[in-house]
Amino acid sequence: MNLKHKILAMVNDDLEDIETALKQNLNPYLDIVSQTAGHILFSGGKRLRPLIMVLSARICGYRGNYDKTFSTMFEYLHAATLLHDDLVDEAKLRRGKPVAHSVWGNSIAVLVGDFLLARALSIAVETGRKNVIGIIAEVTEHMSQGEIHQLIRKGRLDLAEEEYMMIIQNKTALLFQGACRVSAIISDAAEKEEKAISDYGYNLGIAFQMADDLLDYTSDTGSLGKEVGADLKEGKLTLPVIYSLKKAGLEDRARMKMIIKNKEFSIHDFEILIALLKKYEGLKYTEKQAEKYIAEAKKALMVFEPSETRETLLNIADYVLARKV
Amino acid sequence: MNLKHKILAMVNDDLEDIETALKQNLNPYLDIVSQTAGHILFSGGKRLRPLIMVLSARICGYRGNYDKTFSTMFEYLHAATLLHDDLVDEAKLRRGKPVAHSVWGNSIAVLVGDFLLARALSIAVETGRKNVIGIIAEVTEHMSQGEIHQLIRKGRLDLAEEEYMMIIQNKTALLFQGACRVSAIISDAAEKEEKAISDYGYNLGIAFQMADDLLDYTSDTGSLGKEVGADLKEGKLTLPVIYSLKKAGLEDRARMKMIIKNKEFSIHDFEILIALLKKYEGLKYTEKQAEKYIAEAKKALMVFEPSETRETLLNIADYVLARKV
Repeated sequence: MNLKHKILAMVNDDLEDIETALKQNLNPYLDIVSQTAGHILFSGGKRLRPLIMVLSARICGYRGNYDKTFSTMFEYLHAATLLHDDLVDEAKLRRGKPVAHSVWGNSIAVLVGDFLLARALSIAVETGRKNVIGIIAEVTEHMSQGEIHQLIRKGRLDLAEEEYMMIIQNKTALLFQGACRVSAIISDAAEKEEKAISDYGYNLGIAFQMADDLLDYTSDTGSLGKEVGADLKEGKLTLPVIYSLKKAGLEDRARMKMIIKNKEFSIHDFEILIALLKKYEGLKYTEKQAEKYIAEAKKALMVFEPSETRETLLNIADYVLARKV
Repeated sequence: MNLKHKILAMVNDDLEDIETALKQNLNPYLDIVSQTAGHILFSGGKRLRPLIMVLSARICGYRGNYDKTFSTMFEYLHAATLLHDDLVDEAKLRRGKPVAHSVWGNSIAVLVGDFLLARALSIAVETGRKNVIGIIAEVTEHMSQGEIHQLIRKGRLDLAEEEYMMIIQNKTALLFQGACRVSAIISDAAEKEEKAISDYGYNLGIAFQMADDLLDYTSDTGSLGKEVGADLKEGKLTLPVIYSLKKAGLEDRARMKMIIKNKEFSIHDFEILIALLKKYEGLKYTEKQAEKYIAEAKKALMVFEPSETRETLLNIADYVLARKV
């Protein structure tokens, strides 16, 4: 049984409960809201963020009945940013389907994104915990800052690794960290456990984004569900390119820059670029970095006693590296 | 001295403090964020929402030092919705200046709107009051629902008065009400005072939106700072038209519908329409309705002892009706 199936076998019931909660928390709203939100929410997302929250709560000894309900806020937040980012990036495909704004128009994508953001916030309020709401506020603020930062640096070939790290921390890792931390808080976990599970989330999030950025160069459109090389076409420099540009000699660097600057690069150009990413080990370096963060994530879990839940969280960490989509 | 100057003389110091707070709460962020947010925030807005909050807190006996800081959340929320709505409406002018998305592009308008929403939320968290955060969550949710509702009914000539009322409640009145209610909460006001000041805010908000919708037919582009007849060009039916369509005879109704359906109507068409709005008293009816809500708003204030602050809040209610921009 491969890693993915092993995980799914362990969390099947949780995922079903999460689906139900995601639907229930949208139900009482206008049809068009539910429909558009549903397009993005129910199009085969991995539910990684709510799932991690539910498992984190379990490992922290949560005894209430609201873990699945609360977990939806992280999927809603995520979906809200997808709706807005696809619009910002002028993306065409998401999970193999046309993006929401091309189906319903920009306006609906903007407004339903706002609605989902507000929905996430309302659910945070339902937890009745001030620090949970504080985390959601902070995460939301950082996410928009990360996205803005990324946007204003689009097309700039001098993006440094430190800046890239700052962007992926803000736009991705803090949401993962938030999901884990919130689960510790609603479980009244001790400080040590709260820190451990937060560290797991943070490192997992960084590695997840690095793996995502790698896939843009190593996958194919069919399995990725979105255009390959899309990041580059949007002028978005990620670690494989940043590292390779730094390592390359004058001539190769000039070649890479020429390909990147031309947003209409051909498949042939893209293949040359990938060969250069291999030559200067940008892909390998990114993979190594992601592995390092995954190792940190797994190490953090050692605070907890061995259990099925810990095993699943460890498997998820491995899966983040191994996944092909 | 006219009403506007009378109010300004009374609240001059408050407005200055609000400006300072609005700047301070944006300061630590990326330049482009502050700049874009600043474009919309510092372009001559009336600061009505934060001002009402500060005055409401004063009439409720607030003794802390954070009324101005907290008041910024209502301006940030308002600015966030302006950024997103101008994009949704494909508006061109706002307060006599090109709208943000035409200056910086849609992407920045979307993301900075998200940032301001998150900023508002963070300030709500700073109040340390769960019910304040709950109000902000609820208001945000209703605002996006109101906007979505308005959007999906765009261009529909069968919009009824009840539906119009629901839309303006969600998109406008609840934010005014929220500003007033939050001020009562941070002042630890008694239930009676909280209800009174909330009622003031709600009724003021409804009247404000009705007056706004009237201005679209009675003002000129120069003083309004945005295109006259813009609502209609966007397919947005408001009370003056809804009422007149209902009252008109078959023939006149057909004429009105023809003008409305043609988004490229000429100035001559627009003048015919206005004549019909006058003939069927849509303008007058809207004015009367707004007056009714203003009377309610003023009545609610009678719970409080006479004071300068009460006088100013009463003046503001009158101003909402009298304003020409």
